Amino acid sequence: MEPQALKALLRAVESGQSSAEQAMEALADWPSQDLGHSQLDMQRSLRCGHPEVVYGAGKSPSELVDIARALHQAHGRLLVTRATDEGAAACLKALPECTWHQRARIITMGLPDPGEGEGQVLVLCAGTSDLPVAEEAWITARSMGAKAELVADVGVAGLHRILGQQDRLRAASAIVVVAGMEGALPSVVGGLVDRPVIAVPTSVGYGAAFGGVAALLGMLNSCASGVTVVNIDNGFGGGYAAAQINALASPPPS
Amino acid sequence: MEPQALKALLRAVESGQSSAEQAMEALADWPSQDLGHSQLDMQRSLRCGHPEVVYGAGKSPSELVDIARALHQAHGRLLVTRATDEGAAACLKALPECTWHQRARIITMGLPDPGEGEGQVLVLCAGTSDLPVAEEAWITARSMGAKAELVADVGVAGLHRILGQQDRLRAASAIVVVAGMEGALPSVVGGLVDRPVIAVPTSVGYGAAFGGVAALLGMLNSCASGVTVVNIDNGFGGGYAAAQINALASPPPS
Amino acid sequence: MEPQALKALLRAVESGQSSAEQAMEALADWPSQDLGHSQLDMQRSLRCGHPEVVYGAGKSPSELVDIARALHQAHGRLLVTRATDEGAAACLKALPECTWHQRARIITMGLPDPGEGEGQVLVLCAGTSDLPVAEEAWITARSMGAKAELVADVGVAGLHRILGQQDRLRAASAIVVVAGMEGALPSVVGGLVDRPVIAVPTSVGYGAAFGGVAALLGMLNSCASGVTVVNIDNGFGGGYAAAQINALASPPPS
Amino acid sequence: MEPQALKALLRAVESGQSSAEQAMEALADWPSQDLGHSQLDMQRSLRCGHPEVVYGAGKSPSELVDIARALHQAHGRLLVTRATDEGAAACLKALPECTWHQRARIITMGLPDPGEGEGQVLVLCAGTSDLPVAEEAWITARSMGAKAELVADVGVAGLHRILGQQDRLRAASAIVVVAGMEGALPSVVGGLVDRPVIAVPTSVGYGAAFGGVAALLGMLNSCASGVTVVNIDNGFGGGYAAAQINALASPPPS
Amino acid sequence: MEPQALKALLRAVESGQSSAEQAMEALADWPSQDLGHSQLDMQRSLRCGHPEVVYGAGKSPSELVDIARALHQAHGRLLVTRATDEGAAACLKALPECTWHQRARIITMGLPDPGEGEGQVLVLCAGTSDLPVAEEAWITARSMGAKAELVADVGVAGLHRILGQQDRLRAASAIVVVAGMEGALPSVVGGLVDRPVIAVPTSVGYGAAFGGVAALLGMLNSCASGVTVVNIDNGFGGGYAAAQINALASPPPS
Amino acid sequence: MEPQALKALLRAVESGQSSAEQAMEALADWPSQDLGHSQLDMQRSLRCGHPEVVYGAGKSPSELVDIARALHQAHGRLLVTRATDEGAAACLKALPECTWHQRARIITMGLPDPGEGEGQVLVLCAGTSDLPVAEEAWITARSMGAKAELVADVGVAGLHRILGQQDRLRAASAIVVVAGMEGALPSVVGGLVDRPVIAVPTSVGYGAAFGGVAALLGMLNSCASGVTVVNIDNGFGGGYAAAQINALASPPPS
Amino acid sequence: MEPQALKALLRAVESGQSSAEQAMEALADWPSQDLGHSQLDMQRSLRCGHPEVVYGAGKSPSELVDIARALHQAHGRLLVTRATDEGAAACLKALPECTWHQRARIITMGLPDPGEGEGQVLVLCAGTSDLPVAEEAWITARSMGAKAELVADVGVAGLHRILGQQDRLRAASAIVVVAGMEGALPSVVGGLVDRPVIAVPTSVGYGAAFGGVAALLGMLNSCASGVTVVNIDNGFGGGYAAAQINALASPPPS
Amino acid sequence: MEPQALKALLRAVESGQSSAEQAMEALADWPSQDLGHSQLDMQRSLRCGHPEVVYGAGKSPSELVDIARALHQAHGRLLVTRATDEGAAACLKALPECTWHQRARIITMGLPDPGEGEGQVLVLCAGTSDLPVAEEAWITARSMGAKAELVADVGVAGLHRILGQQDRLRAASAIVVVAGMEGALPSVVGGLVDRPVIAVPTSVGYGAAFGGVAALLGMLNSCASGVTVVNIDNGFGGGYAAAQINALASPPPS
Repeated sequence: MEPQALKALLRAVESGQSSAEQAMEALADWPSQDLGHSQLDMQRSLRCGHPEVVYGAGKSPSELVDIARALHQAHGRLLVTRATDEGAAACLKALPECTWHQRARIITMGLPDPGEGEGQVLVLCAGTSDLPVAEEAWITARSMGAKAELVADVGVAGLHRILGQQDRLRAASAIVVVAGMEGALPSVVGGLVDRPVIAVPTSVGYGAAFGGVAALLGMLNSCASGVTVVNIDNGFGGGYAAAQINALASPPPS
Repeated sequence: MEPQALKALLRAVESGQSSAEQAMEALADWPSQDLGHSQLDMQRSLRCGHPEVVYGAGKSPSELVDIARALHQAHGRLLVTRATDEGAAACLKALPECTWHQRARIITMGLPDPGEGEGQVLVLCAGTSDLPVAEEAWITARSMGAKAELVADVGVAGLHRILGQQDRLRAASAIVVVAGMEGALPSVVGGLVDRPVIAVPTSVGYGAAFGGVAALLGMLNSCASGVTVVNIDNGFGGGYAAAQINALASPPPS
Repeated sequence: MEPQALKALLRAVESGQSSAEQAMEALADWPSQDLGHSQLDMQRSLRCGHPEVVYGAGKSPSELVDIARALHQAHGRLLVTRATDEGAAACLKALPECTWHQRARIITMGLPDPGEGEGQVLVLCAGTSDLPVAEEAWITARSMGAKAELVADVGVAGLHRILGQQDRLRAASAIVVVAGMEGALPSVVGGLVDRPVIAVPTSVGYGAAFGGVAALLGMLNSCASGVTVVNIDNGFGGGYAAAQINALASPPPS
Repeated sequence: MEPQALKALLRAVESGQSSAEQAMEALADWPSQDLGHSQLDMQRSLRCGHPEVVYGAGKSPSELVDIARALHQAHGRLLVTRATDEGAAACLKALPECTWHQRARIITMGLPDPGEGEGQVLVLCAGTSDLPVAEEAWITARSMGAKAELVADVGVAGLHRILGQQDRLRAASAIVVVAGMEGALPSVVGGLVDRPVIAVPTSVGYGAAFGGVAALLGMLNSCASGVTVVNIDNGFGGGYAAAQINALASPPPS
Repeated sequence: MEPQALKALLRAVESGQSSAEQAMEALADWPSQDLGHSQLDMQRSLRCGHPEVVYGAGKSPSELVDIARALHQAHGRLLVTRATDEGAAACLKALPECTWHQRARIITMGLPDPGEGEGQVLVLCAGTSDLPVAEEAWITARSMGAKAELVADVGVAGLHRILGQQDRLRAASAIVVVAGMEGALPSVVGGLVDRPVIAVPTSVGYGAAFGGVAALLGMLNSCASGVTVVNIDNGFGGGYAAAQINALASPPPS
Repeated sequence: MEPQALKALLRAVESGQSSAEQAMEALADWPSQDLGHSQLDMQRSLRCGHPEVVYGAGKSPSELVDIARALHQAHGRLLVTRATDEGAAACLKALPECTWHQRARIITMGLPDPGEGEGQVLVLCAGTSDLPVAEEAWITARSMGAKAELVADVGVAGLHRILGQQDRLRAASAIVVVAGMEGALPSVVGGLVDRPVIAVPTSVGYGAAFGGVAALLGMLNSCASGVTVVNIDNGFGGGYAAAQINALASPPPS
Repeated sequence: MEPQALKALLRAVESGQSSAEQAMEALADWPSQDLGHSQLDMQRSLRCGHPEVVYGAGKSPSELVDIARALHQAHGRLLVTRATDEGAAACLKALPECTWHQRARIITMGLPDPGEGEGQVLVLCAGTSDLPVAEEAWITARSMGAKAELVADVGVAGLHRILGQQDRLRAASAIVVVAGMEGALPSVVGGLVDRPVIAVPTSVGYGAAFGGVAALLGMLNSCASGVTVVNIDNGFGGGYAAAQINALASPPPS
Repeated sequence: MEPQALKALLRAVESGQSSAEQAMEALADWPSQDLGHSQLDMQRSLRCGHPEVVYGAGKSPSELVDIARALHQAHGRLLVTRATDEGAAACLKALPECTWHQRARIITMGLPDPGEGEGQVLVLCAGTSDLPVAEEAWITARSMGAKAELVADVGVAGLHRILGQQDRLRAASAIVVVAGMEGALPSVVGGLVDRPVIAVPTSVGYGAAFGGVAALLGMLNSCASGVTVVNIDNGFGGGYAAAQINALASPPPS
């Protein structure tokens, strides 16, 4: 139940338009809805500003469909990350209004178009191979209500590519920087602008990249001030944090 | 040279009040000032909104004094982190207006009083032993112009302590959560509010805490959305990122 | 050979009902039964209170059937963990009274129904994806004679879910807490009640979860007192230890 | 405030012997007492059965004295682990009824004599060098109300030493096994008896012992069923868990 | 070329039965035979007492056949370890006198029967799942000329199984102990006898077994004196070292 | 655009043979060419002496073809490393003049024949299983304009094999040494000659080889002076660095 | 009690020279002698051929003296490793016949002179900085009854140094090779001779030597057959294993 | 003995100016000089172009003086790295012509002045705290005969500092880049020029810098082609390799 709906319900009780019993019934699945395998956190939207996001990995297709249907019903929108092909197929069949973003492995319902949304989140990625993670960040930020842009392949081995993006850097309220290998791009970006930089290490690389550990450590040790880091390949976390900051910078009309 | 000073200088040239030669001389140390052992980045304030912060570890007392004097002269304020006792003593002697925050190992000049500043940054710490890192975050945020508050010893083993802070949580524009051992506090905080949470793992703990690795991994894998992480014991990084976000949420009059 | 059977045998010799030769023959496979590939520990039930449990991984289907048959014959019950699909199929064919619990990868013979058994073991799991491990714990505890209950999806990102289970927590003699990612749930549970908490880290998560290492370290460093830990994904170990404690708290009539 | 005291207070209000105002005053420090640097969890005794235990490392002597005094006042007993020499000296001076157990680095007030207490906890240690950790476990268990015994130097390189302790093993309701190097002792003990075994790895050893990691991994991978593990050198955790189990097995008269 | 053959050749030149030119021709592939992809070390038998052993992994079937044929031709025997199914099939087809030991993934030519050979090497393994590695050790030792015996499933969770093997332990000149999980068996064996113990950790186990690291560390930190260790799953190395020692203890007639 | 072509263009403008507008058009894709998914660094040849090399992993076949075509058009040559089978098939179909080096997983256009090129780069590999990485180094060096030779299977267990190559060692201007397992060959080579040794660790080995970590650490800790190291399995990096050094030693006529 | 003494005692009983009571008294401390802090394993000499060796680290000086005195009394000889300066001083004072080998940190009583002893153990070390560990091995082997020789500073960066020792290599029945940094020497030695090679990694080195991990991994992954490994800096383990092998090769007259 | 001296000696024998006996005597310490604790490699200058460099750590002052004197006598120059204060004091006293470079912990005899030497080696360091390692590289390169320059504090957080050094970058034949924390500088430098870049990670940083591991991994995974890496804090290795390359680029007159 979205905060506005909850407030309307309580006001209806207050004004006598609705009885307490009717309100109780409407709140039957609140704050948790028990699906047997899952306890959906229906109060999260009230507490945290956004409905629960579904982590698709490790859930069976039928569990995923149950959860997706329940959350969409309650909130009118949906974000599933790390969906499997089977999970995505099941959702598309059961909930035809879903969109399946294959490269990012995301299922959405109610995602605004690119260019819509508030403020400005910028997602940069160092190499073409980092695109799946960068797209996860980009779609997540848009799904949280942010206007967001994605610029690919601006790694530090050809500095002129990132130096050519300084206008975009300064126009953003938060910047997500996605990089694998040595993960040096956030340090360079953090040294160029006074915007929050959220660094997302990827598992791109081989050998002593150790599945993203090299990039993760590089980002945690960035010599640029104010760089914060999320888990390896966690485009979702990067996009979410950027959208949270962006919302503070340009709050939607309440 | 602060942005305002640079703008004034250029306007003076534009209006003929100052010659190009005079301006060149005023800019002699710009964008870098060469101290032999160090190349001070005098342009950082313009690019990144704040002057260079000095990392005190690994510098001799005399190098530290040189750098502190040059930065204070250029910017009218100073922040040195990770100072040694020797470095602090040398600075206090050479620059008597310095303040030495021993628990946080920070030297400041021009630090606003607690309660001053813009917006609201909240620094939480899980245990008493995490206080040095939390204070580093707290002083850093204030030094960057944020109003900031520090609440200690609200770890998850006694949940009522953090549940009793929910008003403060909702009043903050950014929350720094400092914790050692298993580092679970950011997950709990991130599940309670819709504010950016910057998690700072500390090296508090023993054995399989591995000097903060357990807390770091816990925070990187937080099940709460939007938690971002900085390096182990990096109170500075947490406070800096929070202050950056806070400034976006409540921009100072330009 | 179960302790009761052994005692009966010795009493029969004592009373003259059985000759020493007959007893020797009955004890031919005691304390070890040699299957060539395996030395079954027939004395374990006497020493440790439960017959040997079979670790199904790394055994061929025919070896598994040999072992299962021999143990069932000797003890009248059976517990195989980590069975492969092939191993399970072979057992079901050779020993039709087997039950195959696919999600938990367990084969049982003689498992009591849920709700039967002594005392009360509570198995909690943080997320839906942790269910296979939690079920392994749940079935193991029941197989050891405990009454056991399983509650899913009560992770710390929505605290009201676990806070709503406090009655169940207080009713249990031992609590198994299964969690992946940052593994914070045992700390919260351990801070709420005075019951032994056995924490089971799972390999759920990605990137810096390192296949369960993050959760393992989090649990080993729990700030709550009295939390003990078993291996990653070791639902069996968690359920076994809980059942041992539960048996102490509510000893079966001897 | 101990549970009994709280219950008495509430009954006094119920019977009119005490006013609500008087009760509120008596509860002023409940559920948390704010010492500025620390938020003492005064409700823990009610929730978890034992008052808060103080982690002495990382606290200044004066902070430690504040905390020790407050906890002793509220609960009539005290347990401080990992105390520094300075912290211990300060406590002994300020609170002369303290006892300082130097090898275990523990400060107690109100510790029962050896041989007193309920039930039976057995603490085993593999080598003489593991004694400090074993004593921490032993004192902790006694401090929690358990009768406890400590047997030293029974490592697996001379099996007859542990095989000679089988009577003691069977008499215990819980067994704490402390070992460094390869940490094999818990596997051997777990294979001999049907009692909960809590394994405590120590940092004893060198080279590839990696400060206790070898023993920790050995214990987590024990081939004996039902072995649970605590952090490296965490004698406190082992003793606490054993005392919790012991209390279940032999509950004190309520 | 085997040492005896080389000596015969040189004596033939010495006595004039053979010309230097003829000898040179016979030695054309000595000390290395160049197969393009490989430089076979034809001198190893002279230097190290045994011909080169072929590591089958990472070689194509045709390369493997080339090498096997060349070594068999030169030495009259062959040992290939870690062979792939494809490599084994190719060898069996090209060199029908080969034997393929599938569980051990070894190809042999000229392997003595069990019971033949000099001295006594004992190979013990802790669990049934460790058998492939134990068989690799067993076949290697026999291939090096040792009499060797394999005893399976004598892990420490049922001590009577290994205590029942003390006669065999004392009869051996060298003991190979193969174990996964916590790898405790070598410590127990090393404490029982005065024979060289070569410990072979296996990758059997899961979670914090880390693919054999737990067992490896346990063995390196063994509290029993004189235990030496080889690489994880390196049954070959264990068997080879044991055979070397065994040959010293019972040297073949020169 | 190759440096010579750029210089010719600028001279044409200088001499009036070409207008600025014409030059701008010719430089439309300079310094970056935007393919949407990739920003090709067309200036790299000017800055770094060689055109961008394509990292084939993580790129779709159609992306790979786009990039290969664009780079070949601009520079007249092409080097793709880590190509997938699908990527290679797509390139061979779209650009028939490509050559696919399957063992090295490299696609080239314009590769000089062996024996051509400047100077002398020597690539050594310790075992037959290291050949794919060694070939990657060998082809890369030739692609960068170096004459290069590859010698296989000269590992340290048969020292005479590398001691027999001393003439080749002394004739080279740079030596690439490729080795897995313990990675000892670079130390031996570095102790024999005064030539730069670039060590390439491979993931050949098992168990505690940890996918090349053992070889990597061995090489980083080489007791021979002047050994430098690249990433695990990074034959490309080794060959590139050797070719750079070789070019300094024997610069092509400018 | 040494095996000979035990046998004599039993024969005295058998022949009536001694009564069973007298024998029991003589065996009062057998198989374990309880010193309170330690359970001395008095049976080890019988089981393992040598009396218990004392690990000096982590024992107080008075505990060490107690143990040393008891073992010397029972066996007529003594070996303490890893003694602290304080422990050594206390032993020298209490037991003046002790010898303190400071570089090796060993205390001995009854150590044969160099050149005495059976067979031949060769201890090699790669660099001068590895000498303390090499001496620990050398003294241990001599203490176990072996003739032993130590050759220093023959690392692989100057191959002629080890190639010049081939006669010594061939004369030894077991070779201990001590090396830090990349630990390559055992591979070279193992490739030169057919003798058991026991590799001892040392913590000599810095940075990515990781306190001996690089050398340890190098040795575990040796491409030479038959190399076995002990813990980092474990000169004792290397010397003990070599002496065990040496004793097999040249058994003392029984 | 330097190569020229050896050649002169052999020519003297050839021409009859010197007898074979006299030559043998002159060569008494060749190829190794045995100091008891050390085997000096007197042939290294001939094989590798430079005399043996002394690793000062882990050698006693008197051993160090012995070695320094012997090497200086033979070669007329000396380089000791990682000297302790005590070792340096002893050398300065025994060999007054030594120079002690305290920050770099190097002792030299016969070091050319800055500005002398062949070619051009450029040593860059990212931060002031990296200076000790950078100076080790700088002095080593000069000691090997290279002209070398050191530029400090040009890290990537202020890109204009390194972009301002492009002329120096292009003038060098080899570039040593010294950096701690995330170690990003080599990637940026490697992307700017076509010169061999030798990256030296330092242990500067804290927390997840893990003593230089973050920088090491970053450098090994550099996205710039041709970057090679040496051990953490191994300024010597970086300087040595750069000097070797520089010598190839500008060979001294033979």
